[in-house]
Amino acid sequence: MVSEHLRFPVVCFVGRKNSGKTTLMEKVIAGLTAAGHRVAAVKHDAHRFEIDHPGKDSYRFQAAGADTTVISSPQKTAVVLRHQEEMPLESILARFVEGVDIVLAEGYKASPFPKIEVHRKATGEPLIHPAPRGLIAVATDERVDTAVPQLDIHDSECLVELIQEKYLGRS
Amino acid sequence: MVSEHLRFPVVCFVGRKNSGKTTLMEKVIAGLTAAGHRVAAVKHDAHRFEIDHPGKDSYRFQAAGADTTVISSPQKTAVVLRHQEEMPLESILARFVEGVDIVLAEGYKASPFPKIEVHRKATGEPLIHPAPRGLIAVATDERVDTAVPQLDIHDSECLVELIQEKYLGRS
Repeated sequence: MVSEHLRFPVVCFVGRKNSGKTTLMEKVIAGLTAAGHRVAAVKHDAHRFEIDHPGKDSYRFQAAGADTTVISSPQKTAVVLRHQEEMPLESILARFVEGVDIVLAEGYKASPFPKIEVHRKATGEPLIHPAPRGLIAVATDERVDTAVPQLDIHDSECLVELIQEKYLGRS
Repeated sequence: MVSEHLRFPVVCFVGRKNSGKTTLMEKVIAGLTAAGHRVAAVKHDAHRFEIDHPGKDSYRFQAAGADTTVISSPQKTAVVLRHQEEMPLESILARFVEGVDIVLAEGYKASPFPKIEVHRKATGEPLIHPAPRGLIAVATDERVDTAVPQLDIHDSECLVELIQEKYLGRS
């Protein structure tokens, strides 16, 4: 399920609030990186995040009215873009991601990419219903009613293996 | 002097350390924005900057090994990219900037784009020598020895006009 226009597979981690998406994705990134894969991570944030701070030069440029601000050092480049409406995941990938083997995304449950739902009993909420398009597995800490494979949320290695097998030709 | 591959003019603000580049650029961004132009700002940082912070999700993904991290909300998208060597300004512009009328860059004195040198007497240092390629003006608080026009560093409006005339068809 690699998109025709992208040169890398994309897997989305979806789930209810506080289900542990970020923590699991962090572990899977570490596992894939340790296996030698180059990974990009994209997080959807429904709220207003602050990545830049008053007094910093890039913040000053943005406060002065710049739509796009970039700060670039020999080791790192950061870009902050203001826009009027949600940027689709496809646009983010096409514009900002290159030179990686795989992309893991947090959120984007309506996107066309394969998905892993993260579920924890403690949230007190059921799985997302109806199941997101492209759901390939559920990472959970309890048995749930689903047609796709269920993996132990605490066993991120198992998920790393699944992703490698399905999307990275098992390096 | 618009590059063949770019759809917008680029002007670099160069000068010695503490000459006031950032402050002047901030004022010019505000002036151009007030005149209705869409501006992108790019800053070259010779040092290691921190834009992301421990505990933030994008920081966690990067710490876990992601080369590229993106966080995107309805209003804003931020991208942090790690790399092994300096990204040339041309690559930054091609990859990250679109939909603006003009780009102002801080630094990049060896780039092929037109430049304004910012100079302040208090730094105790002479102008950059030899003059950067493409130097079009010096913004200064004292008379200096240069073949290009000298503008008052405190009169950012004058610089906004110059940039509009030369690169934006004076909106």
